[in-house]
Amino acid sequence: MAANTFGEHFRVTTFGESHGPAIGGVIDGCPAGLRLDVAAVQSALDRRRPGQSALTTARKESDRVEFLSGLYEGQTTGTPLAFLLRNEDARPQDYDAMKSAYRPSHADFTYDARYGLRDPRGGGRASARETACRVVAGAVAEQLLAHLPVRITAYVERVAAVALNAPPRLYERTAVDATPVRCPDEDVAAQMNAAILEAARQGDSLGGAVVVVAEGVPAGWGSPVFDKLQAQLAAALWSLPAVKFMEIGSGMDGTFATGSAHNDAFTTDSSGQITTASNRSGGIQGGISNGMPIVIRLGFKPTATIQHPQQSVTPAGEATVLEAKGRHDPCVLPRAVPIVEAMVALTLVDAWLAPPARLDQLRR
Amino acid sequence: MAANTFGEHFRVTTFGESHGPAIGGVIDGCPAGLRLDVAAVQSALDRRRPGQSALTTARKESDRVEFLSGLYEGQTTGTPLAFLLRNEDARPQDYDAMKSAYRPSHADFTYDARYGLRDPRGGGRASARETACRVVAGAVAEQLLAHLPVRITAYVERVAAVALNAPPRLYERTAVDATPVRCPDEDVAAQMNAAILEAARQGDSLGGAVVVVAEGVPAGWGSPVFDKLQAQLAAALWSLPAVKFMEIGSGMDGTFATGSAHNDAFTTDSSGQITTASNRSGGIQGGISNGMPIVIRLGFKPTATIQHPQQSVTPAGEATVLEAKGRHDPCVLPRAVPIVEAMVALTLVDAWLAPPARLDQLRR
Amino acid sequence: MAANTFGEHFRVTTFGESHGPAIGGVIDGCPAGLRLDVAAVQSALDRRRPGQSALTTARKESDRVEFLSGLYEGQTTGTPLAFLLRNEDARPQDYDAMKSAYRPSHADFTYDARYGLRDPRGGGRASARETACRVVAGAVAEQLLAHLPVRITAYVERVAAVALNAPPRLYERTAVDATPVRCPDEDVAAQMNAAILEAARQGDSLGGAVVVVAEGVPAGWGSPVFDKLQAQLAAALWSLPAVKFMEIGSGMDGTFATGSAHNDAFTTDSSGQITTASNRSGGIQGGISNGMPIVIRLGFKPTATIQHPQQSVTPAGEATVLEAKGRHDPCVLPRAVPIVEAMVALTLVDAWLAPPARLDQLRR
Amino acid sequence: MAANTFGEHFRVTTFGESHGPAIGGVIDGCPAGLRLDVAAVQSALDRRRPGQSALTTARKESDRVEFLSGLYEGQTTGTPLAFLLRNEDARPQDYDAMKSAYRPSHADFTYDARYGLRDPRGGGRASARETACRVVAGAVAEQLLAHLPVRITAYVERVAAVALNAPPRLYERTAVDATPVRCPDEDVAAQMNAAILEAARQGDSLGGAVVVVAEGVPAGWGSPVFDKLQAQLAAALWSLPAVKFMEIGSGMDGTFATGSAHNDAFTTDSSGQITTASNRSGGIQGGISNGMPIVIRLGFKPTATIQHPQQSVTPAGEATVLEAKGRHDPCVLPRAVPIVEAMVALTLVDAWLAPPARLDQLRR
Repeated sequence: MAANTFGEHFRVTTFGESHGPAIGGVIDGCPAGLRLDVAAVQSALDRRRPGQSALTTARKESDRVEFLSGLYEGQTTGTPLAFLLRNEDARPQDYDAMKSAYRPSHADFTYDARYGLRDPRGGGRASARETACRVVAGAVAEQLLAHLPVRITAYVERVAAVALNAPPRLYERTAVDATPVRCPDEDVAAQMNAAILEAARQGDSLGGAVVVVAEGVPAGWGSPVFDKLQAQLAAALWSLPAVKFMEIGSGMDGTFATGSAHNDAFTTDSSGQITTASNRSGGIQGGISNGMPIVIRLGFKPTATIQHPQQSVTPAGEATVLEAKGRHDPCVLPRAVPIVEAMVALTLVDAWLAPPARLDQLRR
Repeated sequence: MAANTFGEHFRVTTFGESHGPAIGGVIDGCPAGLRLDVAAVQSALDRRRPGQSALTTARKESDRVEFLSGLYEGQTTGTPLAFLLRNEDARPQDYDAMKSAYRPSHADFTYDARYGLRDPRGGGRASARETACRVVAGAVAEQLLAHLPVRITAYVERVAAVALNAPPRLYERTAVDATPVRCPDEDVAAQMNAAILEAARQGDSLGGAVVVVAEGVPAGWGSPVFDKLQAQLAAALWSLPAVKFMEIGSGMDGTFATGSAHNDAFTTDSSGQITTASNRSGGIQGGISNGMPIVIRLGFKPTATIQHPQQSVTPAGEATVLEAKGRHDPCVLPRAVPIVEAMVALTLVDAWLAPPARLDQLRR
Repeated sequence: MAANTFGEHFRVTTFGESHGPAIGGVIDGCPAGLRLDVAAVQSALDRRRPGQSALTTARKESDRVEFLSGLYEGQTTGTPLAFLLRNEDARPQDYDAMKSAYRPSHADFTYDARYGLRDPRGGGRASARETACRVVAGAVAEQLLAHLPVRITAYVERVAAVALNAPPRLYERTAVDATPVRCPDEDVAAQMNAAILEAARQGDSLGGAVVVVAEGVPAGWGSPVFDKLQAQLAAALWSLPAVKFMEIGSGMDGTFATGSAHNDAFTTDSSGQITTASNRSGGIQGGISNGMPIVIRLGFKPTATIQHPQQSVTPAGEATVLEAKGRHDPCVLPRAVPIVEAMVALTLVDAWLAPPARLDQLRR
Repeated sequence: MAANTFGEHFRVTTFGESHGPAIGGVIDGCPAGLRLDVAAVQSALDRRRPGQSALTTARKESDRVEFLSGLYEGQTTGTPLAFLLRNEDARPQDYDAMKSAYRPSHADFTYDARYGLRDPRGGGRASARETACRVVAGAVAEQLLAHLPVRITAYVERVAAVALNAPPRLYERTAVDATPVRCPDEDVAAQMNAAILEAARQGDSLGGAVVVVAEGVPAGWGSPVFDKLQAQLAAALWSLPAVKFMEIGSGMDGTFATGSAHNDAFTTDSSGQITTASNRSGGIQGGISNGMPIVIRLGFKPTATIQHPQQSVTPAGEATVLEAKGRHDPCVLPRAVPIVEAMVALTLVDAWLAPPARLDQLRR
């Protein structure tokens, strides 16, 4: 039940309901001596913020992050970094209908099944608003990873059937953020944009796929057997709301290939470093990073909240028709981009902070 | 680094190298009072055992499981269940070539990167032989789940491009085991069989997809936010070797749909129980089970070990050509079936054993 | 490093420095359906608050607790309970001397050794102010335990050489709180009071012993081997600042006895329940509660901060004389009472929330 | 319930009942590259072995340790080290009486209360035989710590009222092992020996105190707040059977002192290193090691199994008289010495393996 903590060494615990007083979190395990760029954390949050464009919910949240501990003269001290985001534009009254009817494909029914009661205001803890705290923590993790540097960028590859037909690669974030839909190809982005607006006009919603690429991860991160790096990434990414599929490296395509066509031959790069000639492994072999880019594709279902009347039942099991109010994104993909990056950053920094695996790496 | 433990409440720790003296594990947290059917555990192992058919490696391992603790007069006592499988048909000499060349798409290079040394005999700990211990633990978990009952069956849905075109459902295990390839449709199974044998004849290998379905999971298992049930299942399943993609419920298809087409309307069943009219959610909403079948598709890449000469490098970075010996499956899918079931069983029993989530469920 | 979380099932994560903006915490795993009495939580905090009497530091902190999440219409929802206490009477300038000299028997030097830097304002995270968050969480835990009921009371048994000569037992909290020193015997309390005031007058400090008793714990809580209930209690209590010894049951005296004199004979009580005729075991046998009162004695050293000039060194290792300012308790014992109770409550509720240990206790 | 694992980074999981087929364990997280001296591990076990002298149980166990995994050409590989000790001299029939009567101050009743059933043969999992596995794991930990070097020695300071009156210090193990009672003073040892033999002659048992000292621990190990180094040590040591009290540094004496007399003044040693002039802190300040010796005293009650007839009850609650058979130590102290050392070693190696606490310590 204590399910609100992510990570083993860089440990993030989040809290807060969508329409309660505040959301926030505690980061425990951040090494001392990081000069934290709070403005950069705020920028990361701004990328996730509602109300950025016509594509996102009309809810207005300034999402100003306040750090409450763990900093002294601008530096991390090794003690917990607590942070808070006050909820501002809460409209609990919008959710009165949800007390008396389960929203289809939402968590209303299952929360009741588990807890016997729930906070019906905007989904409570099940709201995607919870992900803002992941972005804060992920932004701190990124500032650590920047010292290697490890670079992580995600982008929208597909909205419904509108897809960018180009192999995954590390784009610049400026290129990704150039369009509200966060697809780094302007033409495809325009089509995606149109598709989302049309769905919104119809009171409907769309899903799609996000690709995330991490470069600069050294060979040797991750662990065998149950804590394989891909298993840790999967746990991180499948904890996001609305995920329906995940692929790594060659993904589904790779499962149609023969071994002789699929294997990544070893070779050396110009500096004599051992590397692979191809990257169907997606940067991980045997659960451990091999120094190549980590490449993951993640699929999201269409937003569950739509403006259509829907068949449902009351908590007592009586049939009813639900007409949702509330303010919601017609497509979660654009705002999912910084959240996906955050979860990858959190997973990677946790792998980086793992205890030494060799006797000669132990502190003397 | 302590990566060999799975589960929080039903906790399995495994050990052992492919060509060392033994493999085994310790199950901690199994409730007392289970009359353990050791023969049923052995049967589960036999389904995974090498040498079952022409489709699998010629390595001969009887894989007799020995329980060393935690049982008194046939019942579990609540103390750790330790078990052991002695390795019998080890041929470490087959692996001499692997000391001097990294096998493409294997863990040789990454283990060296992490640990500075490795056990080269048959992949050591990175061998798929490790999964036998998962099957033992999973079989114990299944015996617990049988008390509800929860039923779990996996099957091979696709080998390379040869696919069973039928929606996922819970087949009988006898139907699955009726063919060596473990596809419950005889005709498709025959085609799969032929495809694998042809690949083997060419010294090559194939991948594909396994579907797993769990029925009988009550509504209310799993937790919000980071420990969502699908995240736990993902962590479990992505810890298996060779996984390239995973889908839940509507999966990739669902990400092409609109929200109005994708949502699962609530209704009641004949007994008045709240349920959903469709199951695109795959049995989980908001990270918590909703009582519908849990449906997952898992893709495996073609086996990395092939009989073709392959470009590689030595640990010193010199180019070399690797000619693999060793005995390997040309397709991991048939033997993956019991392993996938085991990981699902382990995840579900862990969710079942979670502490009470409501005040009125606390022990008095 | 991620050392700010206590408990496995009822999991408390705390944060905050003595002179930063706030301290607080997150409770994860509290079952849903508890009607939280926030006023009772505040009362618990008030018992720990500085400035209660002449015996405690002059620092003025109202220590008003604010809950930020996890409550809906006054009830816990099973989601994280976050709480905040703003720091009010911070005087960081009092601590300038501590930047340039290590306070003897404080954490200044060791924090520098571990983190390479530290927050020197009032000990930062090492301040006993951190324990306020334990009291909040412990008060929530107590409200759960009250449903059994389990009752926990601590009291000051000894200040320096002034001791209450009576066997440990469960006093009423009103009796304990009747004197500022929190010894339930008025005469002894008066002597303790005088001793502390005299030490304070001399700019010095005193230590002593606290006894804590928990009644109503059913037989069967705790686990064998590494997680014995006494080991969990020890981990909890030894995490408090200034602890120098701990005894359970017969304690040190018991180690002078023979087995025939020390064993607790089994018998039955008036209701036919199995119990023991004596309680030298202190309520725990084999790491598991036996239904008798849990009895622990805990010794605290004299407060390290004194008003005497003390020999010390600068971080550069140069000899210096430290003249402490700051506001401190001349004796931590009176305020330790609610903190000790809190740690016992947190440990016991965690034991209560443990997953079921028997097949027939599993949820159906 | 999953209570059989110790440590977070150097993680030991043990299993096995006193009169089952075997006991053993799995060490996960041991860094790669340790040339394991298996003979030294066996020597450590031999120090704990029953039947060493007239002071210990007559049970004959050769306690030969067999390592099953994690080693390649004599070196650890970073994968789990599993080990096994077969039980040889099991006499389950000696324990028939225990099925029908609870042994006073044993775990029979509480195991029944928790699990609803138990393995009555020799205490099953509650037997002190379980500690043999701690010694194996501790011996591996010691071999890691020897690289600093950290040195740990325990000794018997007191048996009942026969005490060594000398301040705790690090003795040579040869001096400790020179007498069967493991007190480094020959005269005192002889008195202890006589006292134990006399108690045995009377069918009775004695308790006492063990001191353990660890030298060479660098400043900076351990963590603030809940994971203080003394809290970790307390959790480790209080998980041993029969512990009744624990003191650190000045211990109980220190709680009678004034702050001005108790504080450890900082100074520098001959090499300019910051150190303290006294060691009342016992090597730990603010939960973090300060470079001084860690000094702990641990008290053990008299062995619960005695040869006197004792009042007890049957599981049904009927009064009965128990006449114990079985073979038991009249005093656990001499054999506790290597076990205490093992738990300290396991705790310290876990602290050593903690993730880096500073940005500049992260692996590049």
